[in-house]
Amino acid sequence: MIRFNNDYNRGAHPAILAALSATNDEPFEGYGLDPWCEAAAREILKYLDEPERARASVHFLVGGTQTNVTVISALLRPWQSVVSAHSGHINVHETGAVEHSGHKVEALPAQNGKISAEQVAAVAEGFRVSDIPEHITQPKMVYISLPTEVGSVYTRAELEALRAVCDEYSLILFIDGARLSYGLASPACDLTLADIARLTDVFYIGGTKCGALFGEAVVFTNPALACDFRSAIKQNGGMLAKGWLLGLQFHTLFRDGLYFRIAESAISQAMRIRDAFAAAGVPAYAESPTNQQFVVLTEEQMRALGQKYIYEYEAALGEGRHAVRFCTSWSTSDADVDALVADIAAL
Amino acid sequence: MIRFNNDYNRGAHPAILAALSATNDEPFEGYGLDPWCEAAAREILKYLDEPERARASVHFLVGGTQTNVTVISALLRPWQSVVSAHSGHINVHETGAVEHSGHKVEALPAQNGKISAEQVAAVAEGFRVSDIPEHITQPKMVYISLPTEVGSVYTRAELEALRAVCDEYSLILFIDGARLSYGLASPACDLTLADIARLTDVFYIGGTKCGALFGEAVVFTNPALACDFRSAIKQNGGMLAKGWLLGLQFHTLFRDGLYFRIAESAISQAMRIRDAFAAAGVPAYAESPTNQQFVVLTEEQMRALGQKYIYEYEAALGEGRHAVRFCTSWSTSDADVDALVADIAAL
Amino acid sequence: MIRFNNDYNRGAHPAILAALSATNDEPFEGYGLDPWCEAAAREILKYLDEPERARASVHFLVGGTQTNVTVISALLRPWQSVVSAHSGHINVHETGAVEHSGHKVEALPAQNGKISAEQVAAVAEGFRVSDIPEHITQPKMVYISLPTEVGSVYTRAELEALRAVCDEYSLILFIDGARLSYGLASPACDLTLADIARLTDVFYIGGTKCGALFGEAVVFTNPALACDFRSAIKQNGGMLAKGWLLGLQFHTLFRDGLYFRIAESAISQAMRIRDAFAAAGVPAYAESPTNQQFVVLTEEQMRALGQKYIYEYEAALGEGRHAVRFCTSWSTSDADVDALVADIAAL
Amino acid sequence: MIRFNNDYNRGAHPAILAALSATNDEPFEGYGLDPWCEAAAREILKYLDEPERARASVHFLVGGTQTNVTVISALLRPWQSVVSAHSGHINVHETGAVEHSGHKVEALPAQNGKISAEQVAAVAEGFRVSDIPEHITQPKMVYISLPTEVGSVYTRAELEALRAVCDEYSLILFIDGARLSYGLASPACDLTLADIARLTDVFYIGGTKCGALFGEAVVFTNPALACDFRSAIKQNGGMLAKGWLLGLQFHTLFRDGLYFRIAESAISQAMRIRDAFAAAGVPAYAESPTNQQFVVLTEEQMRALGQKYIYEYEAALGEGRHAVRFCTSWSTSDADVDALVADIAAL
Repeated sequence: MIRFNNDYNRGAHPAILAALSATNDEPFEGYGLDPWCEAAAREILKYLDEPERARASVHFLVGGTQTNVTVISALLRPWQSVVSAHSGHINVHETGAVEHSGHKVEALPAQNGKISAEQVAAVAEGFRVSDIPEHITQPKMVYISLPTEVGSVYTRAELEALRAVCDEYSLILFIDGARLSYGLASPACDLTLADIARLTDVFYIGGTKCGALFGEAVVFTNPALACDFRSAIKQNGGMLAKGWLLGLQFHTLFRDGLYFRIAESAISQAMRIRDAFAAAGVPAYAESPTNQQFVVLTEEQMRALGQKYIYEYEAALGEGRHAVRFCTSWSTSDADVDALVADIAAL
Repeated sequence: MIRFNNDYNRGAHPAILAALSATNDEPFEGYGLDPWCEAAAREILKYLDEPERARASVHFLVGGTQTNVTVISALLRPWQSVVSAHSGHINVHETGAVEHSGHKVEALPAQNGKISAEQVAAVAEGFRVSDIPEHITQPKMVYISLPTEVGSVYTRAELEALRAVCDEYSLILFIDGARLSYGLASPACDLTLADIARLTDVFYIGGTKCGALFGEAVVFTNPALACDFRSAIKQNGGMLAKGWLLGLQFHTLFRDGLYFRIAESAISQAMRIRDAFAAAGVPAYAESPTNQQFVVLTEEQMRALGQKYIYEYEAALGEGRHAVRFCTSWSTSDADVDALVADIAAL
Repeated sequence: MIRFNNDYNRGAHPAILAALSATNDEPFEGYGLDPWCEAAAREILKYLDEPERARASVHFLVGGTQTNVTVISALLRPWQSVVSAHSGHINVHETGAVEHSGHKVEALPAQNGKISAEQVAAVAEGFRVSDIPEHITQPKMVYISLPTEVGSVYTRAELEALRAVCDEYSLILFIDGARLSYGLASPACDLTLADIARLTDVFYIGGTKCGALFGEAVVFTNPALACDFRSAIKQNGGMLAKGWLLGLQFHTLFRDGLYFRIAESAISQAMRIRDAFAAAGVPAYAESPTNQQFVVLTEEQMRALGQKYIYEYEAALGEGRHAVRFCTSWSTSDADVDALVADIAAL
Repeated sequence: MIRFNNDYNRGAHPAILAALSATNDEPFEGYGLDPWCEAAAREILKYLDEPERARASVHFLVGGTQTNVTVISALLRPWQSVVSAHSGHINVHETGAVEHSGHKVEALPAQNGKISAEQVAAVAEGFRVSDIPEHITQPKMVYISLPTEVGSVYTRAELEALRAVCDEYSLILFIDGARLSYGLASPACDLTLADIARLTDVFYIGGTKCGALFGEAVVFTNPALACDFRSAIKQNGGMLAKGWLLGLQFHTLFRDGLYFRIAESAISQAMRIRDAFAAAGVPAYAESPTNQQFVVLTEEQMRALGQKYIYEYEAALGEGRHAVRFCTSWSTSDADVDALVADIAAL
């Protein structure tokens, strides 16, 4: 069986494994206070422009749910909520971890996985003009994913519009970049890492799905928000004892642009799959220019492709039609895509 | 100004004040362990049938938000969620208190303030068939309000259907009865207190809005769920030191049916207001057979009525139309309703 | 049986009941936004000096545990802890409510119910010099009770010393004044309400145990900390719908000093009881110049006094000796004290 | 500089790195639902006896703090507390993570890092006989570390006594085995893994400090408690996307006893260090038969050893004396111990 079900079904990029092997016998200070974390932060910050670069700080955590909860709960006071697309990962796939940390997720209907500045403004304005503000949660943060959970990407104009609303209403803008490399590598994306740093207060750069064994790098560009963040990490169980394992992996990914390069091939492969489905008359379930491709299959098509490929089931759409995901990654081989494309053509 | 804005703008029914005065110099044990709480529980339980009566237990808390959070957080494990109408009080008017207690509110679109057994079944079935159950919250409780936040009431058939779904999926059924008297007193309601006890696991009988100074009586008819509930009350700050004040009030309301009687006049008054608006061509915002009447006013109508009456603003509907609430209560005088009805006719 | 077990076993001071009766038919705005709350705040603030008076704000809640949790959890970030005497109410008698809100109570051994500036400084300095600050909780608030749980009172010098330490380490100083009137009315107490306001960031004035039916008045003298406190009250279930009931009671207690006067007689009575025990050779369990008297009784003495009086059992001390509490209050009659004193003499 | 400061300052045992390399290109199912986790669980369970083996389940998490919080908060209801030595890791070195999850840690004074059955019984009995049980937290779990934070180990008799108390009072017995291999490998320890499984409800086997890159294996031997534990892991951010990395490591450690073997050399080395300090007249700070050695040094001795070795500072003891830790591990070389022993002799 060939796995296209997700982008975290293989170990690490060989360069990362090599780095782990090369340093395995060296002793390091624990809990992220080691030279590799420092070096990795430096490499990441090179991609930022001033003044963000000078004031940014980088923290490394192990996984995405943990990172989302740690960032969100560290920055909100108890009665403040986070605004998210209804399809946002924190709203649907984290076992209510944000609510478990005490905060409401204010879920908005998404358009192709995205929420708009207008929607956020409406929520914030609703609170501002409320005559019973103490009876409702106070929206204080906007959470978006880039790419989104259906593979779409915000444009620079959309992100700037969100930033403007956040400025107007004193909201924190937080980007979940679990798949950030696949967003930035997409030709459809007109954003750079520097743009993201400039337009957000805090974001994270995903490692788990983008070539690392595990690890997410949180970047605060609003320094006031970073205060005591290490305490939040430790309290939320995200402070790896052997923290240099995180630094080492991100150093490997960022010192020479590996993080971006390996995503490019995944995008090319995903576009081939997208085009193959389109050519076969299989409708897209979402418009995605990144490594996740969502399509609508009949049950017969599911059976046909399911004989050779593992894909991810998403949702029953009625009348025998189902949404499924095919996912490429840094580890997807051209041969596997060749096979899939051929089999799609034969549907 | 005449207040129709809510049903908690005056003190207590005179009988309650008399009871407080009569016992003011008597000493009692604290924290609800007094003869009045015991007697009040006994009076309430008289309205239940067997076998519920024998196995039920009654606890008294101070206010509604506190009661909702205490019940919900005492009964759910951390990864379990509560299903509610989007318009449910816990979802929109309690400052995220349920989420603050660690639980997601799974909000469903409401029809005239109500959710259906089918909607709940869809959520529960979605979890049951999920192939990633540990990534999503586990629906474990259904929260409904009776009457609902827009004044509607569930029928016995609707409640029985919800009960059936709850049985099928092992869900707890919890009724927020903050305005229960106004529901039970409505001719449109075919439910009795005994029905409610029979069909739910736990519900509460509102005192604050129904004649008391304050106080809500939680009734567990599923005894397994009541275990350690006093610890939950204390931990959530709902255990009144002078707990007999709660027992005394509910004893006064229930020993001879005062709780139901005083709601009847409120309902009659509300029906007069409803009819007056209808006669004046003012559209209803929701269909309510209880003490809350929601109508759609123009700005001119709002100004006209606003000169003499305080009503509650609900929402801007666009094009100069606004939803507002007129509320009667146990304390509303016929004279005030006469005046309002006349002024509505003159709109 | 005559109750000396606590100071909350009777209703309210007659003046409060009269005020409730007098206003029972008047309509008011809900949730504490009424003229009585405003007037009560004004009366309370008259006891403060400038500049505290000008910048202070007052909020009314229903009960003590609720007040402690609301204040503490509103002011601390998740990884911050509150320092308390081990015998502090939040540490031993609130069902872990503070921990339930997410914060560690850093408990210090008490001397006669009190903690010292030196103890607090040691904790704060321990954090300051820690080389693993992110692995330990950050002490951020000092909680003391005045009077303490064993009836003792902090002197002005002791409170000033605590203030100095709090200033040095940026700690919030919070006083639980559940029995504040009995502290301020004690001849042994050299503090005034103005001193307390000047030396703390936030404190509360107890009503439940000091003449009211219920209610606690939180006074913030550090205005930065009061931000959004109404949201915290609502979220924690402490916002009474008929909030004017709280304002009305505190207005009655403060407009002409009733709050202080009624405590004075309780103190005189307590001193008579203290002296009677001392004369009878019954050892004190704690040195208390306030309304709670803790003594060490033999089992025979317990039986003897237990025939006529209800006292509160505290702890077994071994060898047949037990600590018990006798408590006076605003409602204790001289006749009951006469009887008790005579029976103590006869032990 | 030679590091003796902790047991997590180097990567992984070579066999683990080899296993990671060997499987790096193979695709696996995510979130712990892979053959390696299954195989690792099987290997671990081989060390258990029946009936524990048949009913046990194994879950893999990333780190210790996360594991402690996930287990504790999954098993306790909100008003229940966990009993721990004051020196317990959850009480002093996890940034209040357990309290952040809503539960009080009931800290008891430790004797050489251990708490006794008598101490636990006193707490449980105190709750059982309390006449105000709803005002205090309900002790429901006993947390001990094996080895303890100061390196000591519970004897089988001590553990059986704790089990008996837990049975008597319906308490859950949970062992934090972050350094379990070093405990089981110590000649002073008369316990086996089978004993631990038999005598506890849940425990975890540490990987991070015992040869793995990271990872802790939770073993439930009380199957009722394991219900929904995967939801708890996910919600607490401990569910690694590439979960097979955990299974693979534990499989490597357990398939042929590597986990126990590598601890044996660490113990021999630690004993050499202990003896060297004793011979040099340096007093022990705690009696430890495991890999952590705590000694009391003068400042001159600290400086002398600090020129060549990194040790962990623990506490100032006054009069110029300080407690410090020297730690061996699976990765400590004999040459480094030779050097340290010689330098200790020269103090």
